[in-house]
Amino acid sequence: MANPSILILAGDGIGPEVMAEVKKIIGWYDAKRGITFDVSEDLVGGCAYDKHGTPLHDDTMAKAQEVDCVLLGAVGGPKYDNLDFSVKPERGLLRLRKEMDLYSNLRPAQCFDALADFSSLKKEVVAGLDIVIVRELTSGVYFGEPRGIFTEGNERVGINTQRYTESEIARVARSAFEMARRRNNKVCSMEKANVMESGILWRQVVQEIHDKEYPDVELSHMYADAGAMQLCRWPKQFDVIVTDNLFGDLLSDAAAMLTGSLGMLPSASLGAPMANGRPKALYEPVHGSAPDIAGQGKANPIACVLSFAMALRYSFDLGDEATRLEQAVEKVLAEGVRTADLMGPESGTPVSTSAMGDAIVAAL
Amino acid sequence: MANPSILILAGDGIGPEVMAEVKKIIGWYDAKRGITFDVSEDLVGGCAYDKHGTPLHDDTMAKAQEVDCVLLGAVGGPKYDNLDFSVKPERGLLRLRKEMDLYSNLRPAQCFDALADFSSLKKEVVAGLDIVIVRELTSGVYFGEPRGIFTEGNERVGINTQRYTESEIARVARSAFEMARRRNNKVCSMEKANVMESGILWRQVVQEIHDKEYPDVELSHMYADAGAMQLCRWPKQFDVIVTDNLFGDLLSDAAAMLTGSLGMLPSASLGAPMANGRPKALYEPVHGSAPDIAGQGKANPIACVLSFAMALRYSFDLGDEATRLEQAVEKVLAEGVRTADLMGPESGTPVSTSAMGDAIVAAL
Ligand SMILES: CC(C)[C@H](C(=O)O)[C@@H](O)C(=O)O
Ligand SMILES: CC(C)[C@H](C(=O)O)[C@@H](O)C(=O)O
Repeated sequence: MANPSILILAGDGIGPEVMAEVKKIIGWYDAKRGITFDVSEDLVGGCAYDKHGTPLHDDTMAKAQEVDCVLLGAVGGPKYDNLDFSVKPERGLLRLRKEMDLYSNLRPAQCFDALADFSSLKKEVVAGLDIVIVRELTSGVYFGEPRGIFTEGNERVGINTQRYTESEIARVARSAFEMARRRNNKVCSMEKANVMESGILWRQVVQEIHDKEYPDVELSHMYADAGAMQLCRWPKQFDVIVTDNLFGDLLSDAAAMLTGSLGMLPSASLGAPMANGRPKALYEPVHGSAPDIAGQGKANPIACVLSFAMALRYSFDLGDEATRLEQAVEKVLAEGVRTADLMGPESGTPVSTSAMGDAIVAAL
Repeated sequence: MANPSILILAGDGIGPEVMAEVKKIIGWYDAKRGITFDVSEDLVGGCAYDKHGTPLHDDTMAKAQEVDCVLLGAVGGPKYDNLDFSVKPERGLLRLRKEMDLYSNLRPAQCFDALADFSSLKKEVVAGLDIVIVRELTSGVYFGEPRGIFTEGNERVGINTQRYTESEIARVARSAFEMARRRNNKVCSMEKANVMESGILWRQVVQEIHDKEYPDVELSHMYADAGAMQLCRWPKQFDVIVTDNLFGDLLSDAAAMLTGSLGMLPSASLGAPMANGRPKALYEPVHGSAPDIAGQGKANPIACVLSFAMALRYSFDLGDEATRLEQAVEKVLAEGVRTADLMGPESGTPVSTSAMGDAIVAAL
C-alpha cells in the first residue's frame, strides 16, 4: 500500500517558519516510528501570486484533490493588500475550501493550563476551557450569488448573498452532533433566526436532524449576538457550538482569543469521505500570517504542530499518535519552554521557533 | 412653544418595570426643574401582538413619527417564540428602526468604576473602558431583498441579502466621525473586505468620506473577525468603532458584556433631522426583555435611565441635564446601592427596581 500523502502549503508570513517545525516532526515519525508520509510541497496565497499571478495555481488545486490531506500555514500580508479582490491571497484558501468541499471546520478553543494567565479573561473564567466550534465553511455569504459592486442610478451598491440549502445545513449539523457524542454530548446552534430567514431554516434543519438522528445529544439554540455575549461571559457553559460560515468566523476568533492561547490553536476542515474512506481534509493553525514578526524566528509553531496532530487523528486514524504529540507539547510547556507570545513582560528569554520545534521533537 | 414630546413604548418582560423608573425621573424634571415633557404611551412587541395581532400597530408607528423621540423598553419573550416570523415581537422594533430611518445606532461600551470587578475580563483590561460602537441600523442583511425560504428541487433554501449603497455607508460614517471629534478623534471601521464585496465598498466609502470631510480624524480599518478578537484582548485600543448592521449586532453585544455593566448600558438610534432640527430618535437599553426575572422587581433600571439621559443630550439639547442624571447614577452606585445583577455572591441584600429608581431621584 502506498504511504499516506500530505501536501504542504506553507503560504506567507510566518507560514514557512512554523511549517518547518512540523516537517521535523514528520521526520521524527518516519525515523522513529516507521510511519512514513509522502510529503509534497507547493505554494498558496501571496507567494503563489508572486510566482504565478494567482493565489492558487490549477496544478496545486489538482494536487490538493489527490492527497490524503493538506497542511496549510497561513496566507496574506500587507504587500498584497492592494491586489484586486479576485487574486488576493485569501482567494487561494477560499478556493481550496470550496473545491475540496470542506464543509465542516472544527475549531477547538482550549485553554492550556500553563497559559491560563495569558487570557484577558479572569483565570477562573477560562482555566480548563475546552470547547469546539464547528463552523460551516463552504457556503453562506462567503460564496452566495449574486455578489459584487454594482452601479444603481448614480451610486455604487455592494451586494452579497447569504444562502443555505437544507442539505448544507444538515451535513454540518451531523458533523457537530458526531463531535458532541465523542465529547460531552451537548450542541448549541447559533444563528439570527429572529432577523434572518436563512437563520430560521438553519434552526429548523438542525432541530430536525437532532430529533431524527441524534435525540441523545442535548441541543439548544441561541441567537448569535447572545452567543457572542455568552462566550465572553462564561464560555465553559458550551461543549460544541455549530454555526454558519460568517458567524463562525467571528465567534471562533473571539473564542480563540479568550483562551489566551491563540498561538496554540489548530483547526481541521473536513469534507466528505474519499474513495479510501478518509475525509477530504485541510489542517491549519487558527492564527494568521503575522507579517509583523515573519522571518524573525519568533513565531510559535505549536498551533501548526497541533494541526498536524489533528491530521494524525482525523485523516490517518492515528489517534494514539495524535495524543502522543499533544502530550509532548504539554510537556514542553510544563517545562517552561516559551516562544515570545507565551511570555509575560518580565519572564526571561523566549526560545526561537526552531528551538520550540526541537523541544517538541525531544519530548516525543 | 409646545412641550417636547416623548412616546414611551415599554414593551415586554422587564420593559415596563424599568420604564416605570424613567417615568419617576421625568416627573422629577417636571416638578423640580420646570422641564415638562408631553409623554404618551403605547404598545410594542409581544404585548402589541396580544392586543392587536401585530407587534406594532400602524397608529403607534404614526405616533412614533410625530414625537420628538421614542423611549423603548424591551421586546420579546418565550411566549412569542413560536409566532410566525412576520409578527414576532422583534418585527415591531425593526419596523420602527426602518420607517423612522434610524440609521445610526450609538452603543457606548463603558465600564463603570464601581463595577469593574463584574467583568469576566481582568480588571486592568476593562477599568476605565469607554468606547462607542456606531452600528448601521436600517440596511444590510437585516433588510436586503430577496429574502425568504424557498424550495429548489426537492429541498428548502434560506436566503438573505446583504446590500449597502454608497449613501447608506456615507451617512453612518459621517455619524461616526462626528462622534469621534467629540471624543478622542479615532475611528476604526470593521468589515470583511477580504471576503465580501459589500465590505470592499464599505471600506472604500468610509475612507473617501474620511479623506474628503474628516481628514483630521484618525481612521483605521480592521476585519470584523480580528475586531472581535481585539475587543476581547484589549478593548481600550478603540475609541469609536463603525460597522454594519449584522457585525454591529454581534460586536456591540460582546463589547457590552465585556464591560461587566450590561444592565447599565444605554443606546441611541438616530436618523435625519426633522423639521424642528431634532434628529429622529429612539432610545433603548442594550439589554433585552429578560423574561426570567420579569415581574419580580429585580431588574436594573439604570440602562433605561441612562437611555433617557442620552435623549436629554441628543434630542433635547440638554447636555447639562444629561450629565446631572449620569452623575446621579454614579453617586448612587458609589454609595453601594445595587440591584441583584450588580452584586457578587456574598455582598448583602440587593435593592428592588423601584428602590433603585427612588435612589436615583433622591441623588438628583
Ligand atoms: C483569511 C480569511 C479568508 C478567513 C475567513 O474569513 O474565513 C480567516 O479569517 C479564517 O477564519 O480562516
Ligand atoms: C431584537 C433584535 C431584533 C435586535 C437586533 O438583532 O438588532 C437586538 O439584538 C439588538 O441588537 O437590538
